[in-house]
Amino acid sequence: MHPTRLHALLTKVARRQISVAGAVAALKRLPFENLEFVKVDHHRHLRQGFPEVVFGEGKSQAQIVAISRTLWRQSGTALITRVGAPAVRALRTAGLPVRYHTRARCAVVSRHRPPAPAGRVAVLTAGTADIPVAEEAAVAAAWMGARVEKIYDVGVAGIHRLLVHYSRLSRARCAIVAAGMEGALPSVVGGLVPCPVIAVPTSVGYGVAWRGLTALAAMLSTCSPNVLTVNIDNGFSAGLCAGLINRLGARLP
Amino acid sequence: MHPTRLHALLTKVARRQISVAGAVAALKRLPFENLEFVKVDHHRHLRQGFPEVVFGEGKSQAQIVAISRTLWRQSGTALITRVGAPAVRALRTAGLPVRYHTRARCAVVSRHRPPAPAGRVAVLTAGTADIPVAEEAAVAAAWMGARVEKIYDVGVAGIHRLLVHYSRLSRARCAIVAAGMEGALPSVVGGLVPCPVIAVPTSVGYGVAWRGLTALAAMLSTCSPNVLTVNIDNGFSAGLCAGLINRLGARLP
Amino acid sequence: MHPTRLHALLTKVARRQISVAGAVAALKRLPFENLEFVKVDHHRHLRQGFPEVVFGEGKSQAQIVAISRTLWRQSGTALITRVGAPAVRALRTAGLPVRYHTRARCAVVSRHRPPAPAGRVAVLTAGTADIPVAEEAAVAAAWMGARVEKIYDVGVAGIHRLLVHYSRLSRARCAIVAAGMEGALPSVVGGLVPCPVIAVPTSVGYGVAWRGLTALAAMLSTCSPNVLTVNIDNGFSAGLCAGLINRLGARLP
Amino acid sequence: MHPTRLHALLTKVARRQISVAGAVAALKRLPFENLEFVKVDHHRHLRQGFPEVVFGEGKSQAQIVAISRTLWRQSGTALITRVGAPAVRALRTAGLPVRYHTRARCAVVSRHRPPAPAGRVAVLTAGTADIPVAEEAAVAAAWMGARVEKIYDVGVAGIHRLLVHYSRLSRARCAIVAAGMEGALPSVVGGLVPCPVIAVPTSVGYGVAWRGLTALAAMLSTCSPNVLTVNIDNGFSAGLCAGLINRLGARLP
Amino acid sequence: MHPTRLHALLTKVARRQISVAGAVAALKRLPFENLEFVKVDHHRHLRQGFPEVVFGEGKSQAQIVAISRTLWRQSGTALITRVGAPAVRALRTAGLPVRYHTRARCAVVSRHRPPAPAGRVAVLTAGTADIPVAEEAAVAAAWMGARVEKIYDVGVAGIHRLLVHYSRLSRARCAIVAAGMEGALPSVVGGLVPCPVIAVPTSVGYGVAWRGLTALAAMLSTCSPNVLTVNIDNGFSAGLCAGLINRLGARLP
Amino acid sequence: MHPTRLHALLTKVARRQISVAGAVAALKRLPFENLEFVKVDHHRHLRQGFPEVVFGEGKSQAQIVAISRTLWRQSGTALITRVGAPAVRALRTAGLPVRYHTRARCAVVSRHRPPAPAGRVAVLTAGTADIPVAEEAAVAAAWMGARVEKIYDVGVAGIHRLLVHYSRLSRARCAIVAAGMEGALPSVVGGLVPCPVIAVPTSVGYGVAWRGLTALAAMLSTCSPNVLTVNIDNGFSAGLCAGLINRLGARLP
Amino acid sequence: MHPTRLHALLTKVARRQISVAGAVAALKRLPFENLEFVKVDHHRHLRQGFPEVVFGEGKSQAQIVAISRTLWRQSGTALITRVGAPAVRALRTAGLPVRYHTRARCAVVSRHRPPAPAGRVAVLTAGTADIPVAEEAAVAAAWMGARVEKIYDVGVAGIHRLLVHYSRLSRARCAIVAAGMEGALPSVVGGLVPCPVIAVPTSVGYGVAWRGLTALAAMLSTCSPNVLTVNIDNGFSAGLCAGLINRLGARLP
Amino acid sequence: MHPTRLHALLTKVARRQISVAGAVAALKRLPFENLEFVKVDHHRHLRQGFPEVVFGEGKSQAQIVAISRTLWRQSGTALITRVGAPAVRALRTAGLPVRYHTRARCAVVSRHRPPAPAGRVAVLTAGTADIPVAEEAAVAAAWMGARVEKIYDVGVAGIHRLLVHYSRLSRARCAIVAAGMEGALPSVVGGLVPCPVIAVPTSVGYGVAWRGLTALAAMLSTCSPNVLTVNIDNGFSAGLCAGLINRLGARLP
Repeated sequence: MHPTRLHALLTKVARRQISVAGAVAALKRLPFENLEFVKVDHHRHLRQGFPEVVFGEGKSQAQIVAISRTLWRQSGTALITRVGAPAVRALRTAGLPVRYHTRARCAVVSRHRPPAPAGRVAVLTAGTADIPVAEEAAVAAAWMGARVEKIYDVGVAGIHRLLVHYSRLSRARCAIVAAGMEGALPSVVGGLVPCPVIAVPTSVGYGVAWRGLTALAAMLSTCSPNVLTVNIDNGFSAGLCAGLINRLGARLP
Repeated sequence: MHPTRLHALLTKVARRQISVAGAVAALKRLPFENLEFVKVDHHRHLRQGFPEVVFGEGKSQAQIVAISRTLWRQSGTALITRVGAPAVRALRTAGLPVRYHTRARCAVVSRHRPPAPAGRVAVLTAGTADIPVAEEAAVAAAWMGARVEKIYDVGVAGIHRLLVHYSRLSRARCAIVAAGMEGALPSVVGGLVPCPVIAVPTSVGYGVAWRGLTALAAMLSTCSPNVLTVNIDNGFSAGLCAGLINRLGARLP
Repeated sequence: MHPTRLHALLTKVARRQISVAGAVAALKRLPFENLEFVKVDHHRHLRQGFPEVVFGEGKSQAQIVAISRTLWRQSGTALITRVGAPAVRALRTAGLPVRYHTRARCAVVSRHRPPAPAGRVAVLTAGTADIPVAEEAAVAAAWMGARVEKIYDVGVAGIHRLLVHYSRLSRARCAIVAAGMEGALPSVVGGLVPCPVIAVPTSVGYGVAWRGLTALAAMLSTCSPNVLTVNIDNGFSAGLCAGLINRLGARLP
Repeated sequence: MHPTRLHALLTKVARRQISVAGAVAALKRLPFENLEFVKVDHHRHLRQGFPEVVFGEGKSQAQIVAISRTLWRQSGTALITRVGAPAVRALRTAGLPVRYHTRARCAVVSRHRPPAPAGRVAVLTAGTADIPVAEEAAVAAAWMGARVEKIYDVGVAGIHRLLVHYSRLSRARCAIVAAGMEGALPSVVGGLVPCPVIAVPTSVGYGVAWRGLTALAAMLSTCSPNVLTVNIDNGFSAGLCAGLINRLGARLP
Repeated sequence: MHPTRLHALLTKVARRQISVAGAVAALKRLPFENLEFVKVDHHRHLRQGFPEVVFGEGKSQAQIVAISRTLWRQSGTALITRVGAPAVRALRTAGLPVRYHTRARCAVVSRHRPPAPAGRVAVLTAGTADIPVAEEAAVAAAWMGARVEKIYDVGVAGIHRLLVHYSRLSRARCAIVAAGMEGALPSVVGGLVPCPVIAVPTSVGYGVAWRGLTALAAMLSTCSPNVLTVNIDNGFSAGLCAGLINRLGARLP
Repeated sequence: MHPTRLHALLTKVARRQISVAGAVAALKRLPFENLEFVKVDHHRHLRQGFPEVVFGEGKSQAQIVAISRTLWRQSGTALITRVGAPAVRALRTAGLPVRYHTRARCAVVSRHRPPAPAGRVAVLTAGTADIPVAEEAAVAAAWMGARVEKIYDVGVAGIHRLLVHYSRLSRARCAIVAAGMEGALPSVVGGLVPCPVIAVPTSVGYGVAWRGLTALAAMLSTCSPNVLTVNIDNGFSAGLCAGLINRLGARLP
Repeated sequence: MHPTRLHALLTKVARRQISVAGAVAALKRLPFENLEFVKVDHHRHLRQGFPEVVFGEGKSQAQIVAISRTLWRQSGTALITRVGAPAVRALRTAGLPVRYHTRARCAVVSRHRPPAPAGRVAVLTAGTADIPVAEEAAVAAAWMGARVEKIYDVGVAGIHRLLVHYSRLSRARCAIVAAGMEGALPSVVGGLVPCPVIAVPTSVGYGVAWRGLTALAAMLSTCSPNVLTVNIDNGFSAGLCAGLINRLGARLP
Repeated sequence: MHPTRLHALLTKVARRQISVAGAVAALKRLPFENLEFVKVDHHRHLRQGFPEVVFGEGKSQAQIVAISRTLWRQSGTALITRVGAPAVRALRTAGLPVRYHTRARCAVVSRHRPPAPAGRVAVLTAGTADIPVAEEAAVAAAWMGARVEKIYDVGVAGIHRLLVHYSRLSRARCAIVAAGMEGALPSVVGGLVPCPVIAVPTSVGYGVAWRGLTALAAMLSTCSPNVLTVNIDNGFSAGLCAGLINRLGARLP
């Protein structure tokens, strides 16, 4: 129901041109339509606590600029993932204040410096080839207000490389672990830390690594019960969720 | 928003205790909650034109009796699929007027004779092993008011068996074709008839028939553009949809 | 059996040079051959109520022009799907009256304006990336005579975006829903409308979206019984079938 | 390195029978062995903040009793998942104080009442067949100290059933959503709530539901970025992780 | 078109009540219907040179008896595959002259001794577990008139076991090779013989033998170009085809 | 055992320098080595009745020329499959007498005209996109001495297109059927003809056509028992086997 | 070539009834047949250094007894895998000297005590459910003469449990690692030891553990280059290969 | 625990500023941190007996140069796999002493000639297209000190080609067999030799060769118990493991 129609109906009630029971009946009949006036995007930010994010892949530069500007005006910030340097130049040309994270292929639009981060999120990778995915996660977590600790290239073939970081790991409120190939690192990390671990399978590997499917299935089949998983190469969701989890702890005085 | 609260708000508007703009704002703030008073089940029947159907598999006899009775009281009829003889006896013991379709493993609860069917739906099978699935489809289509023409065991290995039924086929408003193994029959039927064909892959076959997956993939890959597909062994959905399609034509005087 | 031979046989009957029983026997012996004289393409149009459609992918411009011209001459119209701008220019150069639908990548050859559309078909998409597939469906449905209502970018992550279109949805005789990724939208739409829903999985997504397979399997596994499915990215079949379904209702005075 | 050996070495240092540099060298040479004295189980509880959990499936009653008793003595509590009534009777016969959650098939061993729960975790299901998995999640979350809000049978085919619970949903620190078949519910819930959503695919469905794989792939391919996923039917991990997340918020005064 | 109608039409032609051109037109209009009078089963035997075969699996004893009797009366012989001893007893009770091949689980109904076999078909297996499938093939080939040479348990792990049979192999007109696990034997046989090789993957094996799929895919990927393949465990088709191939050579004086 | 060694041993026997029993023992000890002197390529031709064939894909022009020349010199003919125009030019430059079949992408090296073909092999396709694969089969069958009858574009969506060719079909000793998408044509042809049918799945199609896998699985799951299958797009093996089968019948006077 | 024929030929040579060149030619002509006299089973033991092993699954007790007796008589020992207690009783009844390894489900037939083992093979498991597979490997390795060190239940979720065994691990000539679920343990072990690691995926786990496939694919995708893999649950091959590898080192004085 | 901290603690013990029991307690508390001082790379070489190897694919030339130089300085040698000519030129420009193996696409950095090889490793291929993978294995095995015997193009379609190499095969301590398509060769080789066989599936083939998966599954399902498998195209691991196995035998005086 469009607000104008709603307004008209209520005016009739006020003028006693329609009974209260009749107005209730009218409103009852249309269970869904009365959502028509929702300010779509603004409402989403209020409802969920974070604005929409732009998935850059497959979008034209013009589309990226248009959507980013709208989100930035509404929310004061916009995050664009999977975006290349040319689209970032287009954002700058359009006058938007952009910081570009090259390895993460993410752009953040914001005039203001982010507030000081609170709470630690650890981001680990098994190998160097997993770093781009981990960086996407790191940018997203930082954008959500977390302080990110990066621990890269600590795969299970040299387990002592991981163990030396034990104390840093144990301070995190959430750990993100990006790994391809056999995807074993999240299980090991899960057995070490007292917090939730978000496993991100990457498409690194060949043969029966099946472009990340083996890592994904391994992470889901983990023997560590505190491991949660996202889609292959989906660093962004991992970072956003780690940010949400970190925020819970961040409410502390 | 509960009706009492809605009533109270509207009363305030009527009494001018709250301005129209204020009431609009109050209603805006809660975009979802105002659905709370929907009469759930009754509303569904009104909204979709057919009542809920009971999927019998994995439900206890007590559950089947309870849900069927409720639906029957609301809608005057209830359809239970994938139901065995013992549960049907339980329905009878509970005093419900049941007709049981053995091969289809479906039960229809209704006191009244169904109205005379209108419009034709053809139901075909490739082999005899596909008949139980086809029967489920036939019961559902008939329950939706269609007159069902059964043409069974007309698989493509003896294509003349199908061709002799050409004139019966061409009178149907919708054709349902159940086939397992290579699932080729819907393509052939699709090339013969002027109406939509609903293909139902069955789990008949062995080896790389892959319990119906090959038939399903073949049906989806068909070269006949008027073929639509449902899940493996899902005769019910095929029958219901054929009934919906037939009903459109049935509005004719 | 070629008509000349048939003619000769019947002449013999007329001249009593062969008995009736002998002629029956002669005709019985060749169960299949007597189809030889069927006017292949023209017969198809009569048999099915819609002419053949040209699948442009993988065909040369010369092939597309030749086939389209033949179909157009026979049927007065031709639809070419998955066709690029160069082939469309070749059609124009060849003197065919073409309208090109860029987003749908479809061309319609026809000298005449289509008759006024009758009956509504709703075409929905979950995201913006699904629009090309939806447009193909829309062109096909319109070509079959339907009036198309487009409701795009109403994916389930913001369910209120869909709900505001409830009344438009409920007027359709058939709804087409294109969605990639998790493919959840057809289930939700299926629960809202009283008509058949044709679900079109799209290859949008990455990782275990498996180029549309996850959406396809989700649509086939739907809990809404009025959902039918076509192959991944097969907007054309969805549109054609929606057109066939709509036509049933369109027979109304 | 066993503590006795360590003690001997340090005694030598104290007696100056070995130089400090020599002792450093001795310790350096054996990077892994010096873990030998770790009190395995007790250390794990300290390290991770939750004790080991017994996966009952495939274990004999004697094994279940033995392991449960050990864990209970060490940690004051033990959780056994996927355990049937006979093993529970064996636990009781062995004198352990057990509460058995029938639908969840989980047993909790503890003499003390759990402390009052703090923080809300919502547990939702799409259908009734998903409830056993959801109950396992609920038991685990409650065991971790959370207050559990159950919202069952709110699948997307009747989306209004979910929307009426909007306000309850929005109070949760974490939502768990169990769904089989097309697995669409977590995407819809993810779009409504401001907290992380843990999706649990269930093996409910047939045909291309592929015993939960379709639901799993759909959940991983979700368009809602705040959704995390666990293995098929793994209610326990979902509950434990929700408990960990809830605990972060629970540190509030 | 039913013969009576055809007769009536031709009578009209004979009586000059209808012109020859009019009769041609009448016959043209119904391209498919004129098959209606085909004697279905008898025609098949004439058309293909072998009668229908009964697939016993999933059929009741009554069904098996009924179909077998009909086929036997029409063709003088009937082959029933995948049939157990109880159904064979039922066939005997019904008075049918049955020979039962226990290992092959096949029954042959015939009063007469088969004619002396002509031409050799070799049937090989890789292991002993493949023998039941090979026996089904052997029965079918013999039923088609071939002389069968059995060479069992000659898998590639002991290649000399195969090589000693080289001269027997080289006399065959067609070789059937049943193998499970890695399915390598058909490739080796294909490289030795000058005739077509029909590979039959069996469901023997475990793990990634994937119930015969690995053997099937290996056989289809063979580096020996004279290998043809049938479905997993489909000994019958292999035997029938070998029989057809052997028959070509058997036409020799 | 190298011939020189063999010669020396036999000389010793002739000179009575070693007893017969001793020579038998010496030969027994080395079961495999005595193959060392086999003239590899020439032996193969004698053993199998057809020379090796060159698979051109992935080979350099130099390799193709060298292998083809060797085979041609040994056998008087060479067949090269999957070969492009540039390699064919290189063969000509090298002085080899080549005929190139463009659509089949096959080259035949031979100075002599092939002998008059004997026996018919039918080659069918479902669509026009399957023709290149069918042409490869046709070239191979012709190279093996068969007379090839091509029946193209007779897919099951217009089944009458196939039926008009019934009499041509029934004269063939072997039928090859190439089809992509749902791969239904071999089943229909199998039901019509009295000879073996070799089904060739092609990678034509999209979505769940799975690059030919659906067609392959459908062909293997066929309800027509006289259908044999080769790998996806493997026209060559189909043609070679059809040639072998045809040759059996060709021994007729 | 049968020895008698060989003997006759050589006699002719001795008697100068045939020239040496003629005898060479005669032997050349039959490249394969001359293997006919190989003593099949005995030869295998000599050729490979280990006798055949009986795979008990699917064999009758009579078959197991017969084959085991033959092998035992030839080789002095027989190993039967996947064998249950009843068959073992049958072996004993038949008078064979059997030792039965219950957890491994393996039986060893031998009158003599095995010689003292030499060289160490480590056998590890991730969990307790993997132990039966590991025991099968241990029995096979011991049967091949190795000294087996068992290190069970040291999965990666508690990595310190593994590390305490570092010195035992580093003494092994070969390590066997059995793991189900995510199959991560072989990678970790591979990174610690200087010897080859044989990974044995087990079918332990549920959901996307896919009955061992995930563990298998993870092991094949390992980042540790010294890991080799066998089929799911194939403890026997792992043990036999470890025995072969160990034997190489065992040649040391 | 960093060495400085360890030194300080021990100094306190030496000075009796802390009791021995107190020092033990301090060391116990930090089970993992005391690994911090491990010299990572050097330690690995000592621990495993072979240095790290550089996987060249996806690394920049700068990265390859930097890592190779470091490894070369530490270990005196470096092996780079999957590396192209340009990166090799960059290594040379940087002053590293490189030998490049073109077919293997491997580079070895070393100033010294390798010591004389000891022990034989046989490397076989089924076809010529498998040679690049086999060459990678050969380079790795040679780098590990083995003498490599290459036996190429001995696929099972011409089994005598393999058998002539029997005596060479039987001298090897380990055999590596690279094969694509149906992957049958390792089974045959496994049945001939007394040593472990490492099977390397290659991505050679088309259709259901599935880019090496069929060969892999066939190798894992082998009926020869002495076959071990690595990932598709992973020649390097096969060579390294063969080198490790060969080294065990090489310890002989």
